[in-house]
Amino acid sequence: MIYIQRRAIFSAAHRLANPSWSDEKNQAVFGHCANEYSHGHNFQLIVTVKGEVNPDTGFVINLVDLKAIMDSEIIQHVDHRNLNHDVPFMQGIMPSTENLAMVFWQQIEGPIAKHGAALHCIRIVETENNMVEYYGE
Amino acid sequence: MIYIQRRAIFSAAHRLANPSWSDEKNQAVFGHCANEYSHGHNFQLIVTVKGEVNPDTGFVINLVDLKAIMDSEIIQHVDHRNLNHDVPFMQGIMPSTENLAMVFWQQIEGPIAKHGAALHCIRIVETENNMVEYYGE
Amino acid sequence: MIYIQRRAIFSAAHRLANPSWSDEKNQAVFGHCANEYSHGHNFQLIVTVKGEVNPDTGFVINLVDLKAIMDSEIIQHVDHRNLNHDVPFMQGIMPSTENLAMVFWQQIEGPIAKHGAALHCIRIVETENNMVEYYGE
Amino acid sequence: MIYIQRRAIFSAAHRLANPSWSDEKNQAVFGHCANEYSHGHNFQLIVTVKGEVNPDTGFVINLVDLKAIMDSEIIQHVDHRNLNHDVPFMQGIMPSTENLAMVFWQQIEGPIAKHGAALHCIRIVETENNMVEYYGE
Amino acid sequence: MIYIQRRAIFSAAHRLANPSWSDEKNQAVFGHCANEYSHGHNFQLIVTVKGEVNPDTGFVINLVDLKAIMDSEIIQHVDHRNLNHDVPFMQGIMPSTENLAMVFWQQIEGPIAKHGAALHCIRIVETENNMVEYYGE
Amino acid sequence: MIYIQRRAIFSAAHRLANPSWSDEKNQAVFGHCANEYSHGHNFQLIVTVKGEVNPDTGFVINLVDLKAIMDSEIIQHVDHRNLNHDVPFMQGIMPSTENLAMVFWQQIEGPIAKHGAALHCIRIVETENNMVEYYGE
Repeated sequence: MIYIQRRAIFSAAHRLANPSWSDEKNQAVFGHCANEYSHGHNFQLIVTVKGEVNPDTGFVINLVDLKAIMDSEIIQHVDHRNLNHDVPFMQGIMPSTENLAMVFWQQIEGPIAKHGAALHCIRIVETENNMVEYYGE
Repeated sequence: MIYIQRRAIFSAAHRLANPSWSDEKNQAVFGHCANEYSHGHNFQLIVTVKGEVNPDTGFVINLVDLKAIMDSEIIQHVDHRNLNHDVPFMQGIMPSTENLAMVFWQQIEGPIAKHGAALHCIRIVETENNMVEYYGE
Repeated sequence: MIYIQRRAIFSAAHRLANPSWSDEKNQAVFGHCANEYSHGHNFQLIVTVKGEVNPDTGFVINLVDLKAIMDSEIIQHVDHRNLNHDVPFMQGIMPSTENLAMVFWQQIEGPIAKHGAALHCIRIVETENNMVEYYGE
Repeated sequence: MIYIQRRAIFSAAHRLANPSWSDEKNQAVFGHCANEYSHGHNFQLIVTVKGEVNPDTGFVINLVDLKAIMDSEIIQHVDHRNLNHDVPFMQGIMPSTENLAMVFWQQIEGPIAKHGAALHCIRIVETENNMVEYYGE
Repeated sequence: MIYIQRRAIFSAAHRLANPSWSDEKNQAVFGHCANEYSHGHNFQLIVTVKGEVNPDTGFVINLVDLKAIMDSEIIQHVDHRNLNHDVPFMQGIMPSTENLAMVFWQQIEGPIAKHGAALHCIRIVETENNMVEYYGE
Repeated sequence: MIYIQRRAIFSAAHRLANPSWSDEKNQAVFGHCANEYSHGHNFQLIVTVKGEVNPDTGFVINLVDLKAIMDSEIIQHVDHRNLNHDVPFMQGIMPSTENLAMVFWQQIEGPIAKHGAALHCIRIVETENNMVEYYGE
């Protein structure tokens, strides 16, 4: 069993605020992340896939295929977008980094399985200091 | 003459679009940077100050003072903000990285001079691949 | 279950030497890490916390709270300090990176549990080339 | 149980091509990685070793020893080398990053065990965007 | 006058050896860089362009255009290539990082000028520890 | 004229305090940098050398030679040392990053000149956020 990782980057805006809460409560809980007109980040997405090595190629999965899945299922929808307004699969979901990781898992678990490998981890780096990992359960 | 640099980070949203242009022209020139609901970045700001070394301290400028100037004159106004909507000194200015560098220079040149040193360069790193430098002229 | 990470940095001095050994034995085992007047590093501390996502906030733990715990329980005591002389919770403990990781675990496991989440890993990056991880057992 | 990591860097050339396939099939599967005259990378090798902390030293393993093992068993053989031509322990093996990780495991598992610690993970970073991990099974 | 930088990465093999010298002399001068079957690097190319800011766009040069020039004139020819064998504009030139920088300048100075800006600097990062800059004279 | 850079790293302790001042004044000016038992950093030293390219080698200076000069004249004296106590060429000099840069210039300007190249810049990175450059005048 080998674990292979592919990184992609997307630049997106988001705002953290619970729509059922008052402005005061949102400011108290989310601080400047609740500012009305959004802020943004260069998010790093690191996808880990596990599987056995194909003896003909030396690959768990061809990175060309993994990159294509990540691009079509995630990056195209979030890069240079506002995560609160623009992303179909984020509708009604607070765009915290934790939630992003869980939603991204849903987006690519199936397509990766079709290539004979298994999604192992979604890692999102929001800033130099804040990161999240999700292992699917 | 010694050059000393201090880095700060701010996470902000912005949108690049010329308000006197059509949506089509904005998309043609600015591409996905013109998307309506903004996107964002973790911007790095690196300020270079030059001067002679004070023999009592070994410092060109006390980094405590330089950090305080950068925080009060720039970072407080742009961190976790939308550069098109929230920043008083960016009103009416396209928030390209180039323009940010020139406006930031105006914000801190005077305060740094009061500490007996001279602002030399404003460097802004927008992404791993895009950076700008401005030397004041 | 989601894993969230927060990074902090501290700049500290330390010296590796076993006080019950001769200078010769300390030099043989610890090399230049045993030099009498200490040396130092910019240590990176990365704390991983695990838990379920709160549906109201999208958070495992509010990073404001995690940062406050890391600051008050660890960073305040070690930043710009000498790990052999200045740190109450390091008294009598060799300040190797391994031992730092285990002591830091004791410092923050309880406070994090009070926020309904669980400490998962302490990671310390001593240099570009040397790192340690501790999972509490 | 503590996990300690040591990083080393090697600059090597490699070519990915299955010698039993036609040029067309190699280009179709491996793309520009199959170019005849090779390309290359600055590979990062990160070795994780686990064990208990020696109370006399505060160490799982003396990093001087771990570095020596990594140098003599791996780095000397691959640094500034062509992975398809120059490396005795890679003969007949496709030099994919996955295969490198598995072969490197064989090279250092025994020597590390002689120091009373256990090899836990081989991590290889091929580019900013591509990485592999192997845990020995 | 504003300076804008764009980074690109290419993975290439090269060998440093003077064909008019003996193997012994090449080993003495170039060390392991002269190994027969080449080695390789992930080179970073950072291009700095200077000019005035266009008031309609806030840009010195549209980074879409700068990226296209760098791709078509440089990256396409060197990425996943052997710099001694594969690159038309490197024929007969020792592929040292210094020479790469000077040849790359020739490749893109003209195309950048056509966009109303001026090439200012070619920077190449060969490894974490080795870098070169060329300013055109 | 080409500019070539070589990076080296050293881990050192230092304390910033003016011996002719009271403890109170030192704390007021230097803050936690004046703590009695020192703190430390992983300093990065980046040396820039300029010169013309030797047509036989493609080099401004052989990096083997530049590395040897940096090691023997600087790194050996400061790595894993206390900059206030251990370094002959720092005696009586406040070990601020500014002063380090100027003293390091004196150490290597002559030896580099003997190789037919010229020292252009000493750059020292003290932390992710603090850096200094000195150009010799």
